[in-house]
Amino acid sequence: MIKITFPDNTIREYEQGVSALNIAKSLSNSLAKQIIAATVNDISVDANMPINQDATIKLHKWSDKEGKHAFWHTSAHVMAEALETLYPKVKLGIGPAIDNGFYYDIDLPEGKTISEKDFPKIEKKFLEIARGKHVLEKKEMSKNEALNYFSEKGDIYKEELISELEDGTITFYTQNNFTDLCRGPHLPNTGHIKAIKLLNIAGAFWRGDEKRKQLTRVYGISFPKQKLLTEYLVMIEEAKKRDHRKIGKELELFTFSKNVGQGLPLWLPKGAMLRERLENFLKKLQKEHGYEPVMSPHIGQKELYVTSGHYAKYGADSFQPIKTPAQDEEFLLKPMNCPHHCEIYKFKPRSYKDLPIRYAEFGTVYRYEQSGELHGLTRVRGFTQDDAHIFCTPDQLKDEFKKVIDIVLYIFKTLKFENFTTQISLRDVENKEKYIGSDQNWEKAENAILEAVKEKGIKTIIEEGEAAFYGPKLDFMVKDALGRSWQLGTIQVDYNLPERFDLEYIGSDNKKHRPVMIHRAPFGSMERFVAVLIEHTAGKFPLWLTPEQVVVLTISEKYNEYAKKVAYQLNISDIRTLIDDRNEKIGKKIRDSELKRIPFMLIVGENEANTNTISVRKQGKGDLGKMNIDEFAKFINNEVNKELIK
Amino acid sequence: MIKITFPDNTIREYEQGVSALNIAKSLSNSLAKQIIAATVNDISVDANMPINQDATIKLHKWSDKEGKHAFWHTSAHVMAEALETLYPKVKLGIGPAIDNGFYYDIDLPEGKTISEKDFPKIEKKFLEIARGKHVLEKKEMSKNEALNYFSEKGDIYKEELISELEDGTITFYTQNNFTDLCRGPHLPNTGHIKAIKLLNIAGAFWRGDEKRKQLTRVYGISFPKQKLLTEYLVMIEEAKKRDHRKIGKELELFTFSKNVGQGLPLWLPKGAMLRERLENFLKKLQKEHGYEPVMSPHIGQKELYVTSGHYAKYGADSFQPIKTPAQDEEFLLKPMNCPHHCEIYKFKPRSYKDLPIRYAEFGTVYRYEQSGELHGLTRVRGFTQDDAHIFCTPDQLKDEFKKVIDIVLYIFKTLKFENFTTQISLRDVENKEKYIGSDQNWEKAENAILEAVKEKGIKTIIEEGEAAFYGPKLDFMVKDALGRSWQLGTIQVDYNLPERFDLEYIGSDNKKHRPVMIHRAPFGSMERFVAVLIEHTAGKFPLWLTPEQVVVLTISEKYNEYAKKVAYQLNISDIRTLIDDRNEKIGKKIRDSELKRIPFMLIVGENEANTNTISVRKQGKGDLGKMNIDEFAKFINNEVNKELIK
Repeated sequence: MIKITFPDNTIREYEQGVSALNIAKSLSNSLAKQIIAATVNDISVDANMPINQDATIKLHKWSDKEGKHAFWHTSAHVMAEALETLYPKVKLGIGPAIDNGFYYDIDLPEGKTISEKDFPKIEKKFLEIARGKHVLEKKEMSKNEALNYFSEKGDIYKEELISELEDGTITFYTQNNFTDLCRGPHLPNTGHIKAIKLLNIAGAFWRGDEKRKQLTRVYGISFPKQKLLTEYLVMIEEAKKRDHRKIGKELELFTFSKNVGQGLPLWLPKGAMLRERLENFLKKLQKEHGYEPVMSPHIGQKELYVTSGHYAKYGADSFQPIKTPAQDEEFLLKPMNCPHHCEIYKFKPRSYKDLPIRYAEFGTVYRYEQSGELHGLTRVRGFTQDDAHIFCTPDQLKDEFKKVIDIVLYIFKTLKFENFTTQISLRDVENKEKYIGSDQNWEKAENAILEAVKEKGIKTIIEEGEAAFYGPKLDFMVKDALGRSWQLGTIQVDYNLPERFDLEYIGSDNKKHRPVMIHRAPFGSMERFVAVLIEHTAGKFPLWLTPEQVVVLTISEKYNEYAKKVAYQLNISDIRTLIDDRNEKIGKKIRDSELKRIPFMLIVGENEANTNTISVRKQGKGDLGKMNIDEFAKFINNEVNKELIK
Repeated sequence: MIKITFPDNTIREYEQGVSALNIAKSLSNSLAKQIIAATVNDISVDANMPINQDATIKLHKWSDKEGKHAFWHTSAHVMAEALETLYPKVKLGIGPAIDNGFYYDIDLPEGKTISEKDFPKIEKKFLEIARGKHVLEKKEMSKNEALNYFSEKGDIYKEELISELEDGTITFYTQNNFTDLCRGPHLPNTGHIKAIKLLNIAGAFWRGDEKRKQLTRVYGISFPKQKLLTEYLVMIEEAKKRDHRKIGKELELFTFSKNVGQGLPLWLPKGAMLRERLENFLKKLQKEHGYEPVMSPHIGQKELYVTSGHYAKYGADSFQPIKTPAQDEEFLLKPMNCPHHCEIYKFKPRSYKDLPIRYAEFGTVYRYEQSGELHGLTRVRGFTQDDAHIFCTPDQLKDEFKKVIDIVLYIFKTLKFENFTTQISLRDVENKEKYIGSDQNWEKAENAILEAVKEKGIKTIIEEGEAAFYGPKLDFMVKDALGRSWQLGTIQVDYNLPERFDLEYIGSDNKKHRPVMIHRAPFGSMERFVAVLIEHTAGKFPLWLTPEQVVVLTISEKYNEYAKKVAYQLNISDIRTLIDDRNEKIGKKIRDSELKRIPFMLIVGENEANTNTISVRKQGKGDLGKMNIDEFAKFINNEVNKELIK
């Protein structure tokens, strides 16, 4: 008998050679049906792999990351088989699982091509194979055997891959009539896959090398239920509609110019004003929480980043140093604000009475990304962090942490990110040598975070070994309206920079001590946050934030003067108001305002002008009836206050 | 007889050989006494130089730039004579007039040194010579004669200078017992110089070459009246006290760090908040004037500045291009925001109905300066312009100009720069080929500026030929509290960038037209403006702007609780209030608060705590009597409103 330890630390005994699937069956049949892979002793394995000695186990379902990975990996194999059946002599490259689905790189026989028109045929063949419930059989092979197999088949890409592997480490998986070089893990059988959708075709150089042949990359996604595929396709459609690049253009929030450079956003007036409102909102909040603003330049001497350690770690992959004409100097675009803030901390001696010091800066940083990696506002080369660094004593850590959590939670609430989770990343106590900082400080910091999160009553997962080498951290993950997860907001403890910058304060004992640093950015970056907010709200921002709150629509040009009076009165009440006095039908004006996502439409015609009123329509809700202008102004300001209430 | 044309275009006839001094005498004896140099046919000359043909003339007094230059140049010669008398065998380098005084570089004989202790002795000898009223006689000399003269004297530096001159161009000036190589012009005689002060000694490499000998540079300043020297010395003392670097440190507004880099200011919390108040003040004003904010990155592709022309003009002297690791790309730190704003203008087609478009950005730009040129916040390597670009039709230019003038004047008024002048720079109509843009547009633009300034009733000087090649401009010069002149605010018309960026709008004629651009920055840069403001106010900022408006001083610690209550109530009324509850005598607390330039001090003791009042002291004014807290809050908010009223 062997001992199997479960994630909750319960231990059960099984016979030697038992598989994860057997273990799942021993717990319940319905569970076993859902198990598609496992992690045994921290290694991902097939659910049917025999276990021969004492082990820890995690069982994976479709709902887990690991489960999806095996599911999509098997799907790639099944797609390859379908392609081989439909396109004999096709040569196969690699076919991994990715974040959302899988792909396979293929080299089609001379004269053959694949287009989206062929997708239904391939999907049909795919499902035919899947429904065969073919078991995925794993076997080891010698290097020679493996080379022979693919050489006979004419799969030159596989041959190349195998030639670089070490003998004795090569495994193959076979299902039905198809065998592939693979490490696994895979589904127990293909029958788990009930739905498939091919998504896209792209060119991809073999091994990412533009000097080698361009293969055809076929992307797909598969699901254990047809319903999940349907939902996914609806979500994809909705996501396309909400794409922040599309909405950003429609609402004229930002643009890019190839002359200024890729990944360098230009904020248009409405976007710049929206960003300013977000920044002012956080500035006010931070002022109430005792933060002080600072401002630092966008460059720093190379030596500054040598001191901080950034240069050694990222220098080669960054924007390269800036030289000066006459002098022997080198500067770097700042990738982070922390080194500058450390220098500000050092501008005079500090006492324990001065702490905590909280320096906040909307600091624009520059990080090089390859052009292929750039994406709208979410992957850019220059972005503004809502950055702050808290310098405190170890004893103040917990309180400071709680205050930062308050800020993050208030932001989530105000911006309607109701669905979020957190993760606490702690150090690996088995490998303490990997971390900087004393045992005592680590314990203090980790306990501070654990207690702070507990006292705030927040759901959290605790991940041991996931801390940075310089300190534990707390991450916030929000789900947007489409159920997609975004990491927004990190609170990171840091023992490293205070050490590297030799930061000090004089304690009440009159001796020198090192402060602890907290890095935090509740929005993360203004660019990424605005992108997420656009996709979350589909551009229908909260009233306090939205570029235009109200539009006055005239029934005919006779009421243009009255419309101006209405708009003037609202604008001086700090309500952002436009006029649409175009010579268009009122129906068209309403539709256009809906497209512009303006929350309130005020219709003015004869009746309204005579009675000094307005007819109010709410975006997506319809008619709210007549109001007078003052009433409406109060109503709007009240709605805004409700949104911002703590 | 020859014809002499005066600056007001009147013409008078004189005999051939007449000098500027004779001409001055012909006008009035008292004028003649003041004339110390002249400009004849645009060339600076001695006042006693014979004029032999028709000419234009400008007569220079001490009050002119040219007058001061001749005055200090002669003073350098007199100082050299004094030094030669006191230190026989001293070798002379060069001795020019500078912005404020003059210097001479000298090489003292082996074993001799000069220190500040020797200044009185040198000044005495100087005045002795000056009082001799020695005429400065000019004569031409052949190169050989000149070389012989200095070779006999042992003046090796002069020999070196002469060896590089062309024969036939060499002139000498002699006064009393001293002869120097010199182009002039000089005073008619040394008797004009009534007061002298040696200021400083520094080392200076011969010809600025650090491989050559280090000479001794003696700085001095001289005046036509003793009273002017006395005033100057008082001003210098006051300027030292007001040095923005000193006050910036005392008030903890900004700092520099050698690790971040020279010329790259770090704004400390109080400075950052002050800057934010200035920025918000201008943002509000700009919003009222129809400006729209935009935001652009701090770098741009090199090609962007090739297009704008900046790269060709400044590239070699700038921070050098930033390369990327993997791709063939080059970026530059942006030296200006205009190219970015042109790209924003181009993001969609524009109609005449959209104009004027006014894009505003507090844009941080980076310009390389040699480290020796850097000075506090006035000469830096990175600074934030309160930049805006107005894109308009030629017909809108005058109106836009007037609106910009309104903004500048309101800023000057609110920040108490009451003493200012302006200069309009027009093109040189004789050399139209030097300028870009049509005749018609130039005339329109120049008339727009002239009329705008006239309609606003502003004093101005008109300088023909001083326009940039791309358009005419208006400069504002303010005098600070010490009478020093600072250029603050330029409004510049630009025909060049719209051309280079191919900017267009569709006119009412349905055809394509080029917009005109206006560049404007009323503060200039936030860094320089804050520096000037500090020196102008000696750190006693207007109440609305000052970092700390009020400090509560406790008589003893028994009243700390009451002080907290007072401070809390004032802070929630948006009055920036501190508490000084140190265990110190009230006299010391008052003195410390005066040093910190806090405008209002509230003293609280038993009587105040019992009656819920405060005893109010105003910085520099003394006791204002007792008030209750509400009364005081209203009083302060009222004072702030008065400062900001339009």
